[in-house]
Amino acid sequence: MNSAYHPANSPDDVRITGHTIRDIRFPTSDELHGSDALNNDPDYSCAYITLLTDQPGLKGHGLVFTIGRGNEICCTALQSIADSVVGRSLASITSDFAAFSRELTGDAQMRWLGPEKGVVHMAAGALINAVWDLYARWSGKPLWLLLAELSPEELVRCVDFSYLTDALKPDEALELLRQMAPGKAQRIERLKAEGFPAYTTSAGWLGYSDQRIRQLCREAVAEGWTHLKMKVGVSLEDDCRRAAIIREEIGSQRFLMMDANQAWDVEEAISNVRALAVYDPLWIEEPTSPDDVLGHAEIAKAVTPIKVASGEHCQNRIIFKQLMSIGAIDVCQIDSCRVAGVNENLAILLLARKFDIPVCPHAGGVGLCEQVQHLAMFDYIALSGTTEGRLIEYVDHLHEHFVDPVTIEKGRYMAPDRPGYSIEMKADSLATFEYPAGPVWQGRLSRTA
Amino acid sequence: MNSAYHPANSPDDVRITGHTIRDIRFPTSDELHGSDALNNDPDYSCAYITLLTDQPGLKGHGLVFTIGRGNEICCTALQSIADSVVGRSLASITSDFAAFSRELTGDAQMRWLGPEKGVVHMAAGALINAVWDLYARWSGKPLWLLLAELSPEELVRCVDFSYLTDALKPDEALELLRQMAPGKAQRIERLKAEGFPAYTTSAGWLGYSDQRIRQLCREAVAEGWTHLKMKVGVSLEDDCRRAAIIREEIGSQRFLMMDANQAWDVEEAISNVRALAVYDPLWIEEPTSPDDVLGHAEIAKAVTPIKVASGEHCQNRIIFKQLMSIGAIDVCQIDSCRVAGVNENLAILLLARKFDIPVCPHAGGVGLCEQVQHLAMFDYIALSGTTEGRLIEYVDHLHEHFVDPVTIEKGRYMAPDRPGYSIEMKADSLATFEYPAGPVWQGRLSRTA
Repeated sequence: MNSAYHPANSPDDVRITGHTIRDIRFPTSDELHGSDALNNDPDYSCAYITLLTDQPGLKGHGLVFTIGRGNEICCTALQSIADSVVGRSLASITSDFAAFSRELTGDAQMRWLGPEKGVVHMAAGALINAVWDLYARWSGKPLWLLLAELSPEELVRCVDFSYLTDALKPDEALELLRQMAPGKAQRIERLKAEGFPAYTTSAGWLGYSDQRIRQLCREAVAEGWTHLKMKVGVSLEDDCRRAAIIREEIGSQRFLMMDANQAWDVEEAISNVRALAVYDPLWIEEPTSPDDVLGHAEIAKAVTPIKVASGEHCQNRIIFKQLMSIGAIDVCQIDSCRVAGVNENLAILLLARKFDIPVCPHAGGVGLCEQVQHLAMFDYIALSGTTEGRLIEYVDHLHEHFVDPVTIEKGRYMAPDRPGYSIEMKADSLATFEYPAGPVWQGRLSRTA
Repeated sequence: MNSAYHPANSPDDVRITGHTIRDIRFPTSDELHGSDALNNDPDYSCAYITLLTDQPGLKGHGLVFTIGRGNEICCTALQSIADSVVGRSLASITSDFAAFSRELTGDAQMRWLGPEKGVVHMAAGALINAVWDLYARWSGKPLWLLLAELSPEELVRCVDFSYLTDALKPDEALELLRQMAPGKAQRIERLKAEGFPAYTTSAGWLGYSDQRIRQLCREAVAEGWTHLKMKVGVSLEDDCRRAAIIREEIGSQRFLMMDANQAWDVEEAISNVRALAVYDPLWIEEPTSPDDVLGHAEIAKAVTPIKVASGEHCQNRIIFKQLMSIGAIDVCQIDSCRVAGVNENLAILLLARKFDIPVCPHAGGVGLCEQVQHLAMFDYIALSGTTEGRLIEYVDHLHEHFVDPVTIEKGRYMAPDRPGYSIEMKADSLATFEYPAGPVWQGRLSRTA
């Protein structure tokens, strides 16, 4: 175990002394990386926070992922809440993590702007994640292992069960965690040896030419990928043509997933998915608005056995609770930066276990792959006990900007071993891509001025 | 008709030339005005935008209502979107108002921060409302009359039907509006003569002493109020004691509503409402999370014939669609500042008509009474055709800061006759309460420094 970041004996001895918040943007729209039905020109960005401490070399990092415009709003929101941790000891937070989470998400004045959704919730998530990154670094463990080694009681104390108790009570959550305690050590060893299954979205963006799609499919197959995802939703004719190309390249034994990115109304989703069924999709992702629990339920009923997947835009645990309790989703796609951080994702993982729905995290963006791998690995070790039907999304973008980037081998995520939540970005990248002062943006802004 | 603000013949001739955005806060927490189960110390606030035009004296006003902290985030969000209207003619917006609304709520990059919820959605709403205020002033009509005189075709063209068509299609909306066209003129006359029914929340805040509650109830009865609302949700015992006092003061013939402000989980809500049933509440408002459509449905089923009311925190039309389609709410409480402005509220009013659910707008806050009266009056004239079972909330706070404050007579809102959406605040108030530079805040901040 790496203990370089473990200078003190108790988290009582670690005090948060300040923070920095930066607006970081990558000009990804130049090449239509990340283009989908509703996001046609994303500039992958993040509001990036670093917590400073009184311990040499010990920091915590968190981020709100966005796709460009509005990143400044997330920075303002982080500024508005981040002072609340300054002066606190790490122990004062980690000893009652659910209370800390509620302080942020339930602030009597700020909650008016949500409650528990949108900008203020995402900012709370980044701050909470920064504390977890700090806590894992202090512990000398990667986050997945820190979580996996917490006791069921400690994990349940991290969760805010408010608005969940009709579906899941704390005692029941405790029981689910206790059931899976046997075999933890073996699963940790297996994970370290074999990694975690994944799928790739790198071939399927809307903005790519047919030739490029074909080429990327061949490369993906050669690299060992067995599950590929494509974007759909702008034109059914175009979707069918691209699906045919991909199916031709990957054959009938590999799996194809489709992602509509909320492009359709409910009836439209049903008829389009039926038309796309000939290409044998494993799941249809975000067929309609992420807010439409009943709409998803209707679609799921109509398109079975094609699965319905959603989650990257699901605002909080309350939406997940409903989606799961009425069978509106067959695949739960947690996101590390949408909800209130690790704590709310623990609640969602517990709900998924309760309703027996596999968790296949959303990733891509800026540092999402780096973060969600920890959550999926924890889920395997401490909750689901299996990787069957589980996949972490993988997108081959922007990893070079991270200090501890993901390691993919033959289409699988290998378990990170460095302490923390793998969120830290390289100092060079932060300086180069800071908006609008960084050199990448100064060049562009002066050309368009 | 007042035509002082009608200097041009065509909205083509009105050009938006700029905007001002101000952070306005009232220190209402001093006296616990507005205290409820989850908001115990609100400082009623708003992010206030004024659109400037090239026509002498012609401006448009909009605001995001908040309860204090985080108001600065809404100001940042307004800054991020408001430039999009600068340089545009009024006609370029009003000729396809749904397209304008979609430009703001569907911006390919900004929608990541919602989509269509929270800070970015509320900011879009304020900007859209400012355009409506401008449009109504240009038309020389109060907003309710401008809307009531638009044709069914023009109204339907204002609505973004995306994610609604499984419940309500444009043709059906058109038909609902056409059905109610006969009798419009008579209803306008009746409204001008009799006003619109209302209820008061002024006696029911949690922070007041029993003696003050009793006194306020007596005053309310003397003023002619027949419907009063109280806050509940912190302590059932306390709620019962206060409910007994209010019921004693108002008698069995007047109506008492209860508002839990999201304090309860689903099972808790059901058992608490059953315990409060002895005080004969007309409705229970926000019994649980506004995101919990299925939870509301379960509560509604369990506590009938007590009605379930919600809406002030319902993020968008998609949540309302679901709440209404499964009978999860009996009373639809639209809010002028939560959703994407007048346009999205038109969608919600149409849904309420479709599902035959009475609309009783949420008000109070900063300028909410001033705004929602227009929407309720339009609903009566053009959609519902009745005031039966309809009530606008009234709270006696902060009206003195508005140029065109509401007029209440014997517990009814009298129809405003000045052009616009009644959002404009007095220049003096803006200067005094601007945060942190205004004198009210400079005094406070220097005392606590």
